Amino acid sequence: MKIAIHGYGNLGRGVEAAIRQNEDMDLVGIFTRRNPEAVNKQFEDSPIYQENDLDSFKDSIDVLMLCGGSASDLPIQSPKLSRSFNIVDSYDNHGKIPEHFEKVDLAAKEGGKLALISGGWDPGLFSMMRTLFESVLPEGRGETFWGYGVSQGHSDAVRRIPGVADARQYTVPVEETMEKVRSGNFGPLSPRMKHTRLCYVVLESGADPQTVEEAIVTMPNYFEPYDTSVHFVDQESLNRDHAGLPHGGTVLRSGKTGVGHGQALEFSIKLESNPEFTASVLLAFARAVYRLKAQGQVGAITPFDVPLGAMHPETMEALRKRLL
Amino acid sequence: MKIAIHGYGNLGRGVEAAIRQNEDMDLVGIFTRRNPEAVNKQFEDSPIYQENDLDSFKDSIDVLMLCGGSASDLPIQSPKLSRSFNIVDSYDNHGKIPEHFEKVDLAAKEGGKLALISGGWDPGLFSMMRTLFESVLPEGRGETFWGYGVSQGHSDAVRRIPGVADARQYTVPVEETMEKVRSGNFGPLSPRMKHTRLCYVVLESGADPQTVEEAIVTMPNYFEPYDTSVHFVDQESLNRDHAGLPHGGTVLRSGKTGVGHGQALEFSIKLESNPEFTASVLLAFARAVYRLKAQGQVGAITPFDVPLGAMHPETMEALRKRLL
Repeated sequence: MKIAIHGYGNLGRGVEAAIRQNEDMDLVGIFTRRNPEAVNKQFEDSPIYQENDLDSFKDSIDVLMLCGGSASDLPIQSPKLSRSFNIVDSYDNHGKIPEHFEKVDLAAKEGGKLALISGGWDPGLFSMMRTLFESVLPEGRGETFWGYGVSQGHSDAVRRIPGVADARQYTVPVEETMEKVRSGNFGPLSPRMKHTRLCYVVLESGADPQTVEEAIVTMPNYFEPYDTSVHFVDQESLNRDHAGLPHGGTVLRSGKTGVGHGQALEFSIKLESNPEFTASVLLAFARAVYRLKAQGQVGAITPFDVPLGAMHPETMEALRKRLL
Repeated sequence: MKIAIHGYGNLGRGVEAAIRQNEDMDLVGIFTRRNPEAVNKQFEDSPIYQENDLDSFKDSIDVLMLCGGSASDLPIQSPKLSRSFNIVDSYDNHGKIPEHFEKVDLAAKEGGKLALISGGWDPGLFSMMRTLFESVLPEGRGETFWGYGVSQGHSDAVRRIPGVADARQYTVPVEETMEKVRSGNFGPLSPRMKHTRLCYVVLESGADPQTVEEAIVTMPNYFEPYDTSVHFVDQESLNRDHAGLPHGGTVLRSGKTGVGHGQALEFSIKLESNPEFTASVLLAFARAVYRLKAQGQVGAITPFDVPLGAMHPETMEALRKRLL
């Protein structure tokens, strides 16, 4: 199938690399709002175009991967582009997903296209696990933990504090609380009980470390509800030791069946590169979009609508033989 | 939806109990080949009938749960009953699944019914995870581990040895090997490297323990390829300490994305009651069968064909809002 990429940040670069790992996919091109000549490409042979050129590729793209951000790009791009293309996006603004879904559904139906929204790992794979776990273990309780990994939003929040030159924030799940959830023996969980926050901060020259630390740990919503530790490092150390974008997380559910037996389910991921894995997940959803569209589906769908076999390159017959 | 149970062993009893945990489901009845009057029921108010009476319930059963065994019951029952009923079975004879699928598909299509086969946890949930993991991490290697848990087949094999009065066999995954798979750093894995086997054996009076132990650990296929430990206990201890049917397992996959970052995925379950959990999973598939049939699907399907949202009692709209 012929895949195109819209937006060439970390996620777009991840999709570009992941297409090379899927033999049934070819890259039609990368579409960017920047000057294509000036872009530093990851692979020399990837075609790159100005985003305004997208229209002329209408008939040669099977699925368009929208790799922009959820804050300002996707709310505009997904409804607009799903009129002309089958799309996959990674829209992750949880509270606004129903609204995003409605807009994309309307546009895709008008254009006769199929659009999968929120197709990363959370929302995405984790959402699928929460749904599956509740379905097969209806009497129970579930919790999602995130990390160990870099939160871009929290890193940005630290960088906005006066006196901070640069920063990286890691979200760390509290293993002791995860163990309680696994055992099914736990009460209400506060944010503090579930995660701790770990900051590596580079100060601007002359900034007072105590003032900065106080500003971080007391920041409402972002840090105040958590135990936060702050470590000051120089820029060189930050660049050397914290350049990666690792992440991970765990979906847990424990409960009782039938006559009172305890059962526990767990899904976890451990990622050295969050954007590369997200990109790889999006491509598996692109394969499903391509196939479900061929079966006649149009409008918006989410990971809840996708049979897992449709994400896999092999036929259902081959899967039944090899993996069932 | 109206659910009926065919076969009233451990699995059928599990389904009977699980229906009570799903508000959208009612039990039409349990159908047994035994004399219904003589059956020791789990719940007093569960209707129970002779299996020959099934025909007269054709119009009042939405999904029939086939709770017989894969060796001799399901190869006959699933093709036969899927002509008249939407069914779910837990057929687990891996090598013969394609053949079973073809027979059931033919019968269900002739009858205009929908039949889901192999809907437990392995095959079933584990198969889904293997498929999903390969889809989202195409460059990598995966392994499935089983246990800690009771293997009925291996327990039966020990019980057939002369001099053995009773026995229980536990399959135990080798944690060290699981850790290697998680890290992505592992060569070919022999059966011995993945699992050990642990037997609790009650001797018949006068039997020689050394002869029995030798017969167990050298048994081809079942025990010879593994490190097996044998513990002799009296019948009272076996009944007291090993009456349960716990099980569990882990599906792992590790691999590389894009420019060489390591990624690892893991799904695991820990069950105090294997048949009760299997029953609970089968019921979630029954919900999907009911819904997909209402959408017009007929023939045989497997867990690979089921959108996860179709397994959950809530609407897609509610799931998008709450779990995405």
